[in-house]
Amino acid sequence: MKVMCQKSTLLSAINNVSRAVASNSTMDLLECILIESIDDDRIRLTANDTELGIETKIESQVLIPGKIALKARLFSDMIKKLPDSEVIIESDDFGKTFINCEHVHFTLMGLAGDDFTRLPEISRDRLVKISQFDLKEVIRQTIFSASVNANNKVMTGELFHIEDNVLTVTALDGHRIAVRKLLLSASYEPVEVIVPGKTLSEIMKILPGEADRMVNIFITDRHILFEMDETIVVSRLLQGKFYDLGKMISADFETRVTVNKIAFLQCLDRATLFTTDSEKRPIILQIEDDVMNMRINSPIGQMNDKLDIGREGKEIRIGFDPKFLVDVLRVVDEEDISLYMMNPIAPCIIKNDEESYFYLILPINVNN
Amino acid sequence: MKVMCQKSTLLSAINNVSRAVASNSTMDLLECILIESIDDDRIRLTANDTELGIETKIESQVLIPGKIALKARLFSDMIKKLPDSEVIIESDDFGKTFINCEHVHFTLMGLAGDDFTRLPEISRDRLVKISQFDLKEVIRQTIFSASVNANNKVMTGELFHIEDNVLTVTALDGHRIAVRKLLLSASYEPVEVIVPGKTLSEIMKILPGEADRMVNIFITDRHILFEMDETIVVSRLLQGKFYDLGKMISADFETRVTVNKIAFLQCLDRATLFTTDSEKRPIILQIEDDVMNMRINSPIGQMNDKLDIGREGKEIRIGFDPKFLVDVLRVVDEEDISLYMMNPIAPCIIKNDEESYFYLILPINVNN
Repeated sequence: MKVMCQKSTLLSAINNVSRAVASNSTMDLLECILIESIDDDRIRLTANDTELGIETKIESQVLIPGKIALKARLFSDMIKKLPDSEVIIESDDFGKTFINCEHVHFTLMGLAGDDFTRLPEISRDRLVKISQFDLKEVIRQTIFSASVNANNKVMTGELFHIEDNVLTVTALDGHRIAVRKLLLSASYEPVEVIVPGKTLSEIMKILPGEADRMVNIFITDRHILFEMDETIVVSRLLQGKFYDLGKMISADFETRVTVNKIAFLQCLDRATLFTTDSEKRPIILQIEDDVMNMRINSPIGQMNDKLDIGREGKEIRIGFDPKFLVDVLRVVDEEDISLYMMNPIAPCIIKNDEESYFYLILPINVNN
Repeated sequence: MKVMCQKSTLLSAINNVSRAVASNSTMDLLECILIESIDDDRIRLTANDTELGIETKIESQVLIPGKIALKARLFSDMIKKLPDSEVIIESDDFGKTFINCEHVHFTLMGLAGDDFTRLPEISRDRLVKISQFDLKEVIRQTIFSASVNANNKVMTGELFHIEDNVLTVTALDGHRIAVRKLLLSASYEPVEVIVPGKTLSEIMKILPGEADRMVNIFITDRHILFEMDETIVVSRLLQGKFYDLGKMISADFETRVTVNKIAFLQCLDRATLFTTDSEKRPIILQIEDDVMNMRINSPIGQMNDKLDIGREGKEIRIGFDPKFLVDVLRVVDEEDISLYMMNPIAPCIIKNDEESYFYLILPINVNN
């Protein structure tokens, strides 16, 4: 194989596909990026850790067609340190690979590309279109609620539910739920799949997030494929049953509090000084008249603060892990947010009137 | 104690003195910052890990004189998260301390300030003046050559030698030497002390580095004191005998190479891909005619590169740890640098004509 391309183009493709490179694998090939010629003026870079696969096509002059798998880390570091100029990658029949750029000549050993695990073939029957910006936003606004390590594997993923022209994305971890609804520009047959959280985190990082450019999503029983510009991401789906939220969520409330988001976020952020993963402490919200008093107590110290609020319904005293509230407030775009509460032991809900977003947080019982 | 000051002023003082706070000490007080009133409108913040002590004076309205020692980490985090406004710090006779700022009220337990280890009294007989900018530069340009962990403690420090109107700063680690000479604006009696590397690293970070502002340095047999603006840094000196460089350094050379610093640095930086702390590999410089060929070989791959150079004297083939050359080239300001070599096993010297800087690097024998 002998191909020639621009350093900057190559580097950005490497950065994209590197997100699907396995780290510390026992199989050398899983730590590689496959480079292969497609036709006279394009090459494809692929990485695949068998859960998640990413490929990107870039412009390149193909002098001798072929393919080679190169250790991702070293290859990436080499390209990064090259002058910003044309790069020639050439490999011989034994895998010996030469990377030349101006006066710089790197040599490294590659692996035969034939054994590389290709991305699975995905049927392109069921297509859903969504803007890059919207996809990036719905992931950002929900992903923090997915479990990182859960006994129940489905909780590490997000439910993508499509029906008519609405995409609903749901993440939950046993203490909280995040739901984002998005209007699509077309109507679709109902479909519901669980996408691994890691896949979505990586997609969020790869997506340029432009509002006027689209992502094509193809769904099969076992896989989901995201196609954006010249990059394809294929991920296995998580198999299992997601929680039925219908039963958990009630529209009733006894207290509604409206508060300035930034001011509330700053108070909560200060409160996180007093709670750690090993020693959790609740922030207690005391809602009286048009004021929310906040208090958090811990062995190292305490904080008192208060904010003016809008209140509808009963006064209430209720406690939360401040980090759960911080996570929600950081991703909500509105200037003011509304909290809906029933009683000190029932879930608190943060949502807007259209319910395009909906967050549920379990309180910590502070009244006994 | 009850004092009132601006959040931004307080925070920058905390950031300065925090560099002398002990981490993971068995003594609570060493992890504290002492706050004490000086007079009606100033307070002093002090931290002291017994090797290094820093104090800073700031403007503050003193309502009730007194002092209190607060856990540095928590205190710093609290102040950081406050609104940008006036902060009132108040402590009662039991050490209970209240930090109030607008609607925010923090409470934490402080320790009695009486047991706090004060900075040692330093005699102010021997004063040396140097600009903030110069001091920052001479430290930056030498500190990387000091040992991090050495059996011989003096190698973790830098020799400060003052004679007439010249300050000479020397650092070495057994493989390399860095020397910076600086003309002072006055003449001084000869004095020679070894300053701990950690002290100098911290001073480099604290120093704003303005050319027209001075640092006053006071030297005693056991301590060195740096006074800059409202901040004082006191450090123990390292006791022992520093190496006598006179014997190691010769002005003779057989080959002199002049090369563009940035181009050479980029080549060396690429070469560091092939050498690790656990598996060191030399970069081999082959100097022929007006070209320097560079080559590095390792089990993971190799690199060849070449640069145009100016050469005076013999051709030579010599090997170095590329990281040692990178360290020097990163801190030298000149556009072109000169390497002076005798033979493939004698030290290589990088210096300018005035010898205001002088770096010595031992080669790696690559000819057998």
